[in-house]
Amino acid sequence: MSILRKDPLSDSWVIFSEERTIRPQLFIHPETRLPVPAVNYCPFCPGHESETPPEIRAHRPNGGHPNGPDWQIRTIPNKFAVLRVEEQLRRHGDGIYDTMEGVGAHEIIIETPNHDSDIVSYPLDHLVRLLAMYRERATDLMRDERLRYIQLFRNYGFSAGQALSHPHSQIIALPIIPSSVQDVLRSVSEHYEQKERCLLCDIISQEIKDRSRVILENDAFLCICPFASKFPFEAQIYPKRHQAFFTTTTDEELPQLATALQVVLRALKNALADPPYNYILHFAPSYSGEQHQRLRRRLFEEFHWYVEVIPRITRLAGFEVGTGCFINPTLPEKAAAYLRDMIVSDPANRK
Amino acid sequence: MSILRKDPLSDSWVIFSEERTIRPQLFIHPETRLPVPAVNYCPFCPGHESETPPEIRAHRPNGGHPNGPDWQIRTIPNKFAVLRVEEQLRRHGDGIYDTMEGVGAHEIIIETPNHDSDIVSYPLDHLVRLLAMYRERATDLMRDERLRYIQLFRNYGFSAGQALSHPHSQIIALPIIPSSVQDVLRSVSEHYEQKERCLLCDIISQEIKDRSRVILENDAFLCICPFASKFPFEAQIYPKRHQAFFTTTTDEELPQLATALQVVLRALKNALADPPYNYILHFAPSYSGEQHQRLRRRLFEEFHWYVEVIPRITRLAGFEVGTGCFINPTLPEKAAAYLRDMIVSDPANRK
Repeated sequence: MSILRKDPLSDSWVIFSEERTIRPQLFIHPETRLPVPAVNYCPFCPGHESETPPEIRAHRPNGGHPNGPDWQIRTIPNKFAVLRVEEQLRRHGDGIYDTMEGVGAHEIIIETPNHDSDIVSYPLDHLVRLLAMYRERATDLMRDERLRYIQLFRNYGFSAGQALSHPHSQIIALPIIPSSVQDVLRSVSEHYEQKERCLLCDIISQEIKDRSRVILENDAFLCICPFASKFPFEAQIYPKRHQAFFTTTTDEELPQLATALQVVLRALKNALADPPYNYILHFAPSYSGEQHQRLRRRLFEEFHWYVEVIPRITRLAGFEVGTGCFINPTLPEKAAAYLRDMIVSDPANRK
Repeated sequence: MSILRKDPLSDSWVIFSEERTIRPQLFIHPETRLPVPAVNYCPFCPGHESETPPEIRAHRPNGGHPNGPDWQIRTIPNKFAVLRVEEQLRRHGDGIYDTMEGVGAHEIIIETPNHDSDIVSYPLDHLVRLLAMYRERATDLMRDERLRYIQLFRNYGFSAGQALSHPHSQIIALPIIPSSVQDVLRSVSEHYEQKERCLLCDIISQEIKDRSRVILENDAFLCICPFASKFPFEAQIYPKRHQAFFTTTTDEELPQLATALQVVLRALKNALADPPYNYILHFAPSYSGEQHQRLRRRLFEEFHWYVEVIPRITRLAGFEVGTGCFINPTLPEKAAAYLRDMIVSDPANRK
């Protein structure tokens, strides 16, 4: 079972995942590690359904039975979950230290039966169905009153943390609010108190006027290289309509999100020679209990969900790890101009 | 010139370093990058002094002239500095955004004339002199009233950010307080307000009693795997005497710090097959101006300096990057026990 421990210095939680414990001798440092190996056997490929934990949800447009092979998208619990829903939530202290036993969830969304396909080439309606699966799973997990924060993310490429090469996304649901989310909550709340406006709505309106950092814009979404990008070619996608949660994205908005995501991922792929990347959906913490009604209402006003896309093309050195202050060699205005050129010259965008 | 920009969402500063700007085509993602190349030419080797910016300080036990070859330790400005002391500090706003022009400092401490030597094998008196050089440079930079935070660190190995293979440490001095330091300041200040005691002094006394996470202890320093280690085999070294700044470490304490640092680095090297790592000296922000006297007095009480040693043997995936919540497969009690065994069985500790 996993344990959460709080670091009293940084006031942030760390998950100790016993399921993943490996003997110290087995740590091999990244310099000598190989990229994701092309193995012949893949537990995520159709026909291997019995090798994974039983599925939670699947998209089977032509029928078929659960855990059978006829799926197009399939959500399963992670076999090596960092947290599990079956556990009891227990908190305890030891002198100055705080510990929590690991209730949570860790799911894998297998995006396609096709091992070799790439998200940038999914047919648009397939990507829309994948985003609808994200929405469905997040909505379901947000109902669990013990859970506080749900993170949807995708690791692409070895140095971005991808372990199995079959295209997949992940959801981790936590019983705590992670530290970087606390920072954002503090900022949006301070802004709201001062201005009675949403911070990201203000950012969006300034960016749309300025245009120098805009990568693309459609009716429902804006995609920019943020003003203080921590990483070169970092991109963020914002819904233009104020919404605290990704889960309230409408069926009309999903295709626009799918287009924005696919166009920007393809621009990054072309600009940076198929870089490893992470994308992350950030939305407000879920306080679903009755007792949290007031807090939830406040979050609805203050928080604005967004997608963060981080190409992992630089290394984090001691300075960044030690301070949380990032050194970025590329101004976002330059990155955005370069990505706009990529979009214009990409024949896939002319269909 | 560098520019600092503040991210309104996370309330943290990012440094945009024009000196380091490279064309997007030149980004090669880490998977295809090679480890630090063994080149024939090294600008840090003796005889190449004229290829570096003029030195700031050097240790020349047998005399010789500045920028000549007879040094044992040599501090120079970084040729590719992320920040420079010669710049003017200017702040400006653009709508919702904050920018600061980049005053600061970025120095390289070349630790030894010997290109191939390794810090774990430096003679103890040489390592003490290196730490004394750290102390001298930090003391000098803390006098500059424009600078707020001084970070001393060492990157070892390619994936820990080392660019040149000649052994060296770095100092970066910033005109702002970085976000992760703000988090620590908040924690130590809250603890002090509640208890009128230093948080790290309380941690140290609990760890010394508990012993399960202690790697080593001498008269002046304690080295542990922290209770909520973010990374497997992470270690922290604390001065047992309450001190806010590394710069007040006495000549009697320096050899004890040198021993603790060397023994733990050697244990990590033996345990993890010479892993890449960062070590970082964390001390209180320097508010040297007259107007900051009260704040400075408070920091003296609340802050306790420490060294963080982070082996870089795991990858950061989307979840960690997105939440700041780390997943660690190794409990610190297990890591500490393993490192204690390494120390006992290391013949170098029996001298």
